[in-house]
Amino acid sequence: MSNIASNKAKCRIVVDAMGGDFAPRNAVIGAIEALNVNNDFELLFVGKKDDIQKVISENNLTFDENNIIHTSQVIEMGDTPTQAIKTKTDSSIVVGARLVKDKKADAFVSAGNTGAMMAASTLIMGRIPGVGRPTIGTFMPNESGITTIFDVGASVDSKPSHLFEYAVMGSIFVKEIYHIDNPKVGLLSVGEEDSKGNETTLSAFQLLKKSQLNFVGNIEGRDVLKGSVHVVVCDGFVGNILLKFGEGVLSILKHLFREYASQGLFNKLKVLLVKGTLKEILKKFDYQEYGGVPLLGVNGISIIGHGSSSPKAIKNMVLRAKEMYDRELVLKIENSIKNYSSIL
Amino acid sequence: MSNIASNKAKCRIVVDAMGGDFAPRNAVIGAIEALNVNNDFELLFVGKKDDIQKVISENNLTFDENNIIHTSQVIEMGDTPTQAIKTKTDSSIVVGARLVKDKKADAFVSAGNTGAMMAASTLIMGRIPGVGRPTIGTFMPNESGITTIFDVGASVDSKPSHLFEYAVMGSIFVKEIYHIDNPKVGLLSVGEEDSKGNETTLSAFQLLKKSQLNFVGNIEGRDVLKGSVHVVVCDGFVGNILLKFGEGVLSILKHLFREYASQGLFNKLKVLLVKGTLKEILKKFDYQEYGGVPLLGVNGISIIGHGSSSPKAIKNMVLRAKEMYDRELVLKIENSIKNYSSIL
Repeated sequence: MSNIASNKAKCRIVVDAMGGDFAPRNAVIGAIEALNVNNDFELLFVGKKDDIQKVISENNLTFDENNIIHTSQVIEMGDTPTQAIKTKTDSSIVVGARLVKDKKADAFVSAGNTGAMMAASTLIMGRIPGVGRPTIGTFMPNESGITTIFDVGASVDSKPSHLFEYAVMGSIFVKEIYHIDNPKVGLLSVGEEDSKGNETTLSAFQLLKKSQLNFVGNIEGRDVLKGSVHVVVCDGFVGNILLKFGEGVLSILKHLFREYASQGLFNKLKVLLVKGTLKEILKKFDYQEYGGVPLLGVNGISIIGHGSSSPKAIKNMVLRAKEMYDRELVLKIENSIKNYSSIL
Repeated sequence: MSNIASNKAKCRIVVDAMGGDFAPRNAVIGAIEALNVNNDFELLFVGKKDDIQKVISENNLTFDENNIIHTSQVIEMGDTPTQAIKTKTDSSIVVGARLVKDKKADAFVSAGNTGAMMAASTLIMGRIPGVGRPTIGTFMPNESGITTIFDVGASVDSKPSHLFEYAVMGSIFVKEIYHIDNPKVGLLSVGEEDSKGNETTLSAFQLLKKSQLNFVGNIEGRDVLKGSVHVVVCDGFVGNILLKFGEGVLSILKHLFREYASQGLFNKLKVLLVKGTLKEILKKFDYQEYGGVPLLGVNGISIIGHGSSSPKAIKNMVLRAKEMYDRELVLKIENSIKNYSSIL
């Protein structure tokens, strides 16, 4: 074993070479770049072997062809997730998830169809024992660092116990990956008072109060970006709308600046002058900057990237997967959820 | 009757002189300004008579003191709404709502405690026959005009029939006040496909499909500001979080610009140069610019303003109340809801 520091088996990370708008190019280049940063893991590709090898040779890269697992099908961005994973059984997403399920890999990374990736991870890898619902997290900048939000779309109609699980899993993720001890958890609601909320959050509030988590109580929409908590807990319906609304705000801001610039030469000059500044500031909001997002609660490591992921984004996703493996995220979630079984 | 154009009785609008952070000053000055724009209504104030008269004399205004209804109590911003309206029965908010209930006024306008104003309007004025839940709407800029969102906090745990009612009431509001025939209605969800949503929105989708409304289907968070629909329908829990998150985005943008400016003189100069531009563009997002927001579904006109409302905001709220009276919003909502009684 090359890794002297640990007795653990070498981490094996599968990358979906067919995932994303620029597949297989960005996936292949980015994943191989990750190996240059940290070679203490084994990299596997799933996808069309010829296409992958073409990218490798065209870019003068070196990669062991035995680590390319050929798959004949591709789940497209427009495919219906659950149907696609049933019918396209030789697709890179299905085969990648199965490799983790069969203990032939530890982590799966894809910038492909998000819904299919969630469905394949959940249905094929299965859930960690004790976890009712997996959760997908996202990152947003706040005034002093990064806020995480769980859930942003893996599960709608979450029950109070599910919201509680998101808080547990999100806290472990933030502690292990961002090295924040005792991360603060806030329950997203319509007012800060304990009595504010809907039926589900009011019950979840009581569960969270009883836990060992660093639960600070309800937070409001305006607190998400303030950085008052490290983990924002909400139902996936709310979190998904919030996430996409945030994208919409950036989009209309850009539109308003363009419109302003079009109203005369002087305006145009002013906007031109600060274009770089604006770009730099708005970049903080670009979720692509944060690479992929983790799907927690599935029995294995699953990281999902944006369709337009750059090689850099893919590289960061692979390195994140490695980190989650090293920090034994899956085991820690299992143990923590087990400890809370009396509350849930 | 002074209003020759109409056979209707003259509209009577009560303004809460004690409502808002700058009460009674802004409320009194703003409401009297509205009379200068349109004197075809009767203006009444509720609040501490001496304080109101002081503002009137200090600002050299003219106002009939018989139209000042003295109230001895004030519901403060920090008071618990339902408790406050029970215990402070001689407060401006309770007395104002009662004047509408007792048909001594047609509309009530306040920039005071939002929760108390919602509770007083709902519990004292009562609901329009057939309406299950009142809804509070808000306005957001979109690429071509304004998007309205119903509900943003009057009702959480809305049932499918409630979401349907919000769509009906929101459509009437947009048609009558923004003069948009057949306004487009979108149901806020986690995907555009008919099959996407939570249990409540999936059922609401079916109700909306059966209606005469111009229902375009599900919309996502990112569509809210695109202007693809005139009325966004959602549960108050989701809408309230969205509204406050939007405020949070503006706040962190300002923070990021300040932070950027602090990183050296050149950055500072660049930000100084565009400060005005930024202010102008971000102003579009400032909900204070839109004056108050309507609480629809209560049996009377109720307009709620932001605590920091300026005289201009108050003036616009009063004029909006007049418009809602002229367009017979309450009657139109009652008739429309009655027509849908077979679906609901």
